[in-house]
Amino acid sequence: MEIISSCEKMQELAKTWQKEGFVVGLVPTMGYLHEGHLSLAQAARKKCDIVVMSIFVNPTQFGPNEDFAVYPRDLAHDTKLAQSVGVDYIFHPQAEDMYPEHYSTYVQVEGLTETLCGKARPGHFRGVTTVVSKLFHLVLPQMAFFGQKDGQQVAVVERMVKDLNFPVTIVRVPIQRQSDGLALSSRNIYLSEEEKKQATVLSRSLRMALKAAQNGEKNAAALKELIYQEISRQDLAKIEYVEIVDAVTMQPVTELKEQVMIALAVRFGKTRLIDNIMIPQNCED
Amino acid sequence: MEIISSCEKMQELAKTWQKEGFVVGLVPTMGYLHEGHLSLAQAARKKCDIVVMSIFVNPTQFGPNEDFAVYPRDLAHDTKLAQSVGVDYIFHPQAEDMYPEHYSTYVQVEGLTETLCGKARPGHFRGVTTVVSKLFHLVLPQMAFFGQKDGQQVAVVERMVKDLNFPVTIVRVPIQRQSDGLALSSRNIYLSEEEKKQATVLSRSLRMALKAAQNGEKNAAALKELIYQEISRQDLAKIEYVEIVDAVTMQPVTELKEQVMIALAVRFGKTRLIDNIMIPQNCED
Repeated sequence: MEIISSCEKMQELAKTWQKEGFVVGLVPTMGYLHEGHLSLAQAARKKCDIVVMSIFVNPTQFGPNEDFAVYPRDLAHDTKLAQSVGVDYIFHPQAEDMYPEHYSTYVQVEGLTETLCGKARPGHFRGVTTVVSKLFHLVLPQMAFFGQKDGQQVAVVERMVKDLNFPVTIVRVPIQRQSDGLALSSRNIYLSEEEKKQATVLSRSLRMALKAAQNGEKNAAALKELIYQEISRQDLAKIEYVEIVDAVTMQPVTELKEQVMIALAVRFGKTRLIDNIMIPQNCED
Repeated sequence: MEIISSCEKMQELAKTWQKEGFVVGLVPTMGYLHEGHLSLAQAARKKCDIVVMSIFVNPTQFGPNEDFAVYPRDLAHDTKLAQSVGVDYIFHPQAEDMYPEHYSTYVQVEGLTETLCGKARPGHFRGVTTVVSKLFHLVLPQMAFFGQKDGQQVAVVERMVKDLNFPVTIVRVPIQRQSDGLALSSRNIYLSEEEKKQATVLSRSLRMALKAAQNGEKNAAALKELIYQEISRQDLAKIEYVEIVDAVTMQPVTELKEQVMIALAVRFGKTRLIDNIMIPQNCED
């Protein structure tokens, strides 16, 4: 496995792969890898000739009061983990190389980015779509692998790829969870033991809502209320949002009809956790 | 020569060229071709294996009160002209294919787009950078050819390519002029005979400023005043702007130092004309 830190070198190499006709898979990450990231790399390993994992804590997707400076980083450990699942190249650019002086260009998806996390984190998705565009041009992948954990993010990236005609296929990989249901996240290390225990309510409340939907409950307000009540039983949980949205447009629905996503963001102390579940159409069947 | 109108088919074909290792050149136009466009195609013909000319009157780069609906179109004539200079493919997409329902993604260059034409035409360059991004992904060129006539546009596109790491080289092609100096433009057909005659003042005033600079005048205000005075002698001319800007950042300068561009926009009746001249550093030498 090789670690590449120069943008120019990355793109030169990518061009040679293109000439050779290799199928290249990109796994974009911010590092501090866990099983969730590794499942993306494993999916890429199965489908691609060359697997590139980018590790870049992208400053443009953090708000001024967010955790950019303290976001966990451990390249040495990440390198071992990436190697263990067959990643061929780690692309680890420097921020000054990605955003040099006079940097001025941003990619913005409208509409989908204004609900859920986009509401609470203005500019976040603009940073995501901008850096993903850059990574696509630097690594020139045919496929890119995103986790369903960041459900709105993958919907936004899919919209961008379609709208801007990127020659890239987006592959969604299911959420990886601990045995107690907690969705894996690099931010879980911020949690105390008690917070970690209480945070299992996120997946539990989503499963309760899924079951209620399967039992015929179609009303979004009723399903949301179920989740609110369940989460509110945990005294350390502060709900930021619970929403039921169309899985493509990310706009709130009042009744379950098309494929929808139930998404939530909850704070435990300073730690903001997100989770979601997809509810397919005709989930009663 | 072949005309392609489907985005999907265009990209499929482009991918086969990529596999074959052909050097592809893109000449993006809005059609109604004149010698200026043909000079771009000729430059592409010299450097590339395959020359694709896109002809697309892009709705997103026109303001609500601009001339989108009446912008001149003549595909049959364009086809003949393109063929005469060796274009291999015309890409002529439909607006509904480029911007389908629920289209939501835009590419925005900040800073450079806020001066000159960007000031008078809010949203114009966002439309340009968005459609150019799409064309780059659909045609997958190694080189793209832009006219110096739209001096701010090519600076904005260069900034976008650099910032988003597009694997595309931008080639600037000099302004093509009539023998009386009028820069070629599809919009010249809007001009009456008298307006056409008076419009020669644009290039004349720019050449005067260049000469003054070569004779040692470094003060931007003085050079602009020269141009204002010369243009004001034409009674049908309404100046929108005369600016002297840094050739890279498009920001106004007070003294000639680095490479600068003198750019102007002038209305004759309903017709808005632009022209510019580059003044190299040490132009006295």
